[in-house]
Amino acid sequence: MKKIAFAGLGSMGLPMAKNLVSKGFNVQGCDTNPKALESFCAAGGTAAATAAEAATGADALLLMVVNAAQAEAVLFGAGALDALPANAIVCLMATCPPGSVEKIAERVEAAGKRFVDAPVSGGTAGATAGSLTIMAATATPVFDEIKPVFDGMGQRIFHVGDKAGQGATFKAVNQLLCGVHIAVVAEAFALAAKVGVNLDILLEIMSGSAASSWMLKDRGPRMLKSDPEVSSAVDIFVKDLGIVLDTGREKKTALPIAAVAHQMFLAASGRGEGLADDSQVIRSYYAVNGTRKPA
Amino acid sequence: MKKIAFAGLGSMGLPMAKNLVSKGFNVQGCDTNPKALESFCAAGGTAAATAAEAATGADALLLMVVNAAQAEAVLFGAGALDALPANAIVCLMATCPPGSVEKIAERVEAAGKRFVDAPVSGGTAGATAGSLTIMAATATPVFDEIKPVFDGMGQRIFHVGDKAGQGATFKAVNQLLCGVHIAVVAEAFALAAKVGVNLDILLEIMSGSAASSWMLKDRGPRMLKSDPEVSSAVDIFVKDLGIVLDTGREKKTALPIAAVAHQMFLAASGRGEGLADDSQVIRSYYAVNGTRKPA
Repeated sequence: MKKIAFAGLGSMGLPMAKNLVSKGFNVQGCDTNPKALESFCAAGGTAAATAAEAATGADALLLMVVNAAQAEAVLFGAGALDALPANAIVCLMATCPPGSVEKIAERVEAAGKRFVDAPVSGGTAGATAGSLTIMAATATPVFDEIKPVFDGMGQRIFHVGDKAGQGATFKAVNQLLCGVHIAVVAEAFALAAKVGVNLDILLEIMSGSAASSWMLKDRGPRMLKSDPEVSSAVDIFVKDLGIVLDTGREKKTALPIAAVAHQMFLAASGRGEGLADDSQVIRSYYAVNGTRKPA
Repeated sequence: MKKIAFAGLGSMGLPMAKNLVSKGFNVQGCDTNPKALESFCAAGGTAAATAAEAATGADALLLMVVNAAQAEAVLFGAGALDALPANAIVCLMATCPPGSVEKIAERVEAAGKRFVDAPVSGGTAGATAGSLTIMAATATPVFDEIKPVFDGMGQRIFHVGDKAGQGATFKAVNQLLCGVHIAVVAEAFALAAKVGVNLDILLEIMSGSAASSWMLKDRGPRMLKSDPEVSSAVDIFVKDLGIVLDTGREKKTALPIAAVAHQMFLAASGRGEGLADDSQVIRSYYAVNGTRKPA
């Protein structure tokens, strides 16, 4: 496991691929953005002109693209799957609905390659620090073989199951909680703002009570600013809670709280605020309740 | 501030009143439950036959009753307010909607007494340990006067505002987050159970990720049992999220996520499971999705 093809050098993929280079892997990266390729080469990576070129002779192909459609385009459209040697490992690390992952896995395995469903959590900060959580579903021997590569990008590596789609399910469930936790903090603050209490004291009390969450502590302070620095955008949760709800549809499972939370992110994006920090989902509450105006 | 009347010696009030006794306060307790009075006397408290008797000559009257209606019954119906000396302090510590608290405060102050809106959080464990969080709204001189009494029952004492109703708002917002956090963990686990992944690994991963919450860590393990020990009952959140939604109605504020979460607790109670541990709100998800049967 020495030669790695890496497709998708975006805000997550670029630091992940760079970390692999720094750990001594021979990484061939590809992306449609020339600046990303340039940055990757400056860090010691090799640029490939196409996904098929990157995949040629690689032991594994890592996909950190935007969604399942892009993964299919790289694998089946751009010919990366055919270019991989027999028995090579395809790792789908993007956030995708479990059903889509299952279908991609079938096609990959039908072509004589192996498949790992391995989404990550930890954001760009975790990708840069090499401290990602990686939730991998695949057969145990495949997991054992690919684990050194995961160790090059993450700190908490879990073998969550042996079937493709199980990793994606873990990620969907994780994002369900993350997205709802942000939206419900917004709902709580919006109520408090309407009644008229000191929101800074409220944040302090709740951060130390049974009401606390990782998101309350992380997003809470930014939520109280009218135009905070963007750590992660509203549109990320439009997408990720969308995948959560797609998962519910695939599996015919009612997810009433996630559905409501999604509406609040969706409405914010629809007002043209999709690139704002995701804490600004609170503006949907301000808008609907006619309280503090969006800044 | 030496002589305290204490109305409501239930699962919260009894340990709170006992803690005051152990701190050297002269506490006259009243409750309709003779066993509670007996236990209180055994701990050094004094039993009063009526709320008016308890209030006679007291520097402060603490109300730890079930709801606003009981507080009104004690104060106005049973004559405790009239029995209090002029300028005595009435502390309403039960969870009540802010609007009800405002109305009670007006009547108390019109009768020449002072009022503190001071709900608590921390549950029976915090009440017993004397480690409650107390969120007090009242004028600063009144807060300073009553604070030694609060110090006898809690560890985190906050002066959250100077208007009656502001303490109740803090409590409502706190309970909004607590109740939704429990319900959304249930929603997430129910999806994972439907897809079929290992829920123990899921709990471990999410407890250490951005998806984490105090409730995930506390209720999560009990949620994975079919009939866990009752730490706090489903019906508590039927009541408390009900107060949250009453607060939204009073203030004409949309609380869509809290409303959905309330439905899931309400349905559990309606199936006859109101006395089960609140983690068992997950059975509402199992029921609606036709997955694992309620135990």
